[in-house]
Amino acid sequence: MNHVVAESIHCDAAQAGWWAAACPSPDPAFACAAREHQGQLTKPPGSLGELENVAVQLAAMQASATPAADRVWISVFAADHGVAAEGVSAFPQAVTGEMVRNFATGGAAISVLARALGATLEVVNLGTVNDPGEVAGVRRAVIAPSTANFCVQPAMNDVQLHAALEAGAHSVRMAVEAGAQVFVGGEMGIGNTTAAAALACALLGLPAAALAGAGTGLDNAGISRKAEVIDRALARHAHETSPLRMLACLGGFEIAALAGAFIAAAQARLPVLVDGFIATAAALAATRLNPGCREWMLFAHRSHEQGHAALLEALSATPLLDLGLRLGEGSGAALAISLLRNACALHNGMATFAQAGVSNA
Amino acid sequence: MNHVVAESIHCDAAQAGWWAAACPSPDPAFACAAREHQGQLTKPPGSLGELENVAVQLAAMQASATPAADRVWISVFAADHGVAAEGVSAFPQAVTGEMVRNFATGGAAISVLARALGATLEVVNLGTVNDPGEVAGVRRAVIAPSTANFCVQPAMNDVQLHAALEAGAHSVRMAVEAGAQVFVGGEMGIGNTTAAAALACALLGLPAAALAGAGTGLDNAGISRKAEVIDRALARHAHETSPLRMLACLGGFEIAALAGAFIAAAQARLPVLVDGFIATAAALAATRLNPGCREWMLFAHRSHEQGHAALLEALSATPLLDLGLRLGEGSGAALAISLLRNACALHNGMATFAQAGVSNA
Repeated sequence: MNHVVAESIHCDAAQAGWWAAACPSPDPAFACAAREHQGQLTKPPGSLGELENVAVQLAAMQASATPAADRVWISVFAADHGVAAEGVSAFPQAVTGEMVRNFATGGAAISVLARALGATLEVVNLGTVNDPGEVAGVRRAVIAPSTANFCVQPAMNDVQLHAALEAGAHSVRMAVEAGAQVFVGGEMGIGNTTAAAALACALLGLPAAALAGAGTGLDNAGISRKAEVIDRALARHAHETSPLRMLACLGGFEIAALAGAFIAAAQARLPVLVDGFIATAAALAATRLNPGCREWMLFAHRSHEQGHAALLEALSATPLLDLGLRLGEGSGAALAISLLRNACALHNGMATFAQAGVSNA
Repeated sequence: MNHVVAESIHCDAAQAGWWAAACPSPDPAFACAAREHQGQLTKPPGSLGELENVAVQLAAMQASATPAADRVWISVFAADHGVAAEGVSAFPQAVTGEMVRNFATGGAAISVLARALGATLEVVNLGTVNDPGEVAGVRRAVIAPSTANFCVQPAMNDVQLHAALEAGAHSVRMAVEAGAQVFVGGEMGIGNTTAAAALACALLGLPAAALAGAGTGLDNAGISRKAEVIDRALARHAHETSPLRMLACLGGFEIAALAGAFIAAAQARLPVLVDGFIATAAALAATRLNPGCREWMLFAHRSHEQGHAALLEALSATPLLDLGLRLGEGSGAALAISLLRNACALHNGMATFAQAGVSNA
């Protein structure tokens, strides 16, 4: 089945608008059976809290009585941002390309976490100003050295947007073909909390002050300057009313790739574990492009980035972790994979009251 | 070093009052070096949030530049409570003994989680009304079939209290001898949220309504009855002013064993990961018996049990997880072990800016 689904995504992807194709729903019969099973396990009903919900949701998504999160696929999309010219980051733009190499050579946080999980880590270079060139372990899908400065013009043209969406879908096809049970999308790109905040402000009709945060470490003056940059961009692109145009005008290659990946994963019945602020902004864009993809999303954590809470609320999302993380790369999602695995282990491995000869309430 | 420490605990434990012997402090030089190292890793400073604190704390406790949580020891202490006669639980008292068997045969939540972690799981039967007898994999350290009903008389006499404290210390000696890097204490005992709430109310000078919660699943009427039972017990033992007497009068065998284990672990320089409501009440009692043990405690989660937040606040504790758990057994701590392991993996495995050739802020 996976192979057929992957083929069908591939065909859709060749046409404009594949991202609007219907997403299936998780299977309600498996959800119901899983909920019933949880009630029979040797514990007070509901006492495993959110882990019970996770097990039930994965059972429904995977249409399985024994949900699993053993085979995890992590794609990290890296790209540079024209808006970095406005001085919105605490780090120089060269870091994006430098980190691409660090992801591949194993020194980055997501590299360490992927190794610890036994997960597949795919690194995708969508375009960096400081281009590391061919690097072993990095998929080159370069669209341009960076997006344009969206204070001046749209970040992407249509061809670039479609290429970015397709890059995400391509990763999902690889994940499906590898038998992944959960998809994690991470990102790297100096300036991308600015792009994510701008995009989310446009999608939610909020002013910059609501979502502009410290990113990699701005002080208050820096955050004010960033908010001013975002407000300028919002004014410039205020005439755009479609989510697709907002994504083109205010997003980034890696943000569009994440949105494309999330939709493609939903179309392929592959559960998605959404990471932090930037991934959640991409998830919000994905649900505006294709509302059916929301049902395939689990949310890993509430990040320290100011604005993330509002994005989670807009998506009616209850994240699993709240650890003050603000790193990106998919790292928060990687950390939450252990909870998914434990939720599945408990669901599949605990004895029932009848099996264990334990008296019920 | 571990062996020498274990010997020294053994000698102390033979005398009354071993629990008051000084705890060492975690090593501030290793804390300082670990904090400095975190600042060199290829990530924005502080962006790993609580995981950075965990790595720094474990480095200081283990006096190591490469902290680890690979070898985990979990002791689950089971015991029955005389106060169950007052009808304070949603489950029959027979469940305590039945669950002892379920722990040992692998069907309980903590059994599943210990297996998933590769952790050692020790099950200790301190006394159950429905006694399962000799069970493979269960250490028998039976003190009595249950505590006395503390609405009528002290839950334990001094001999019983000392035996319970010593049972916890015994487990820690075994953990140290096995080379454990983290100690988790779990519990099982029908009625033990009532005992934990009563003990914590006495220690904190709070009325029952502040800490009495649903336990395994009481409705509002049941919670009111439970609070009335606790207030009755508090009135009966109001003349007790020492933490040791409060523990004897209002605790349980497993709660005293946990308190003893936490103190013994601190004396042996073994980090403790504290579980939910009952374990936190035991941790509070431990810090009143020996304040120095607080520095060796990490807190796994904020449970759904009403009252847990107040206990955490009294201990100035910031727990790692908040998942609506209310199962006990050490299950929440077992779930948080993955975060400790990931915190250590990141601390030990990430590249520095210099190593990776990545530009700093």
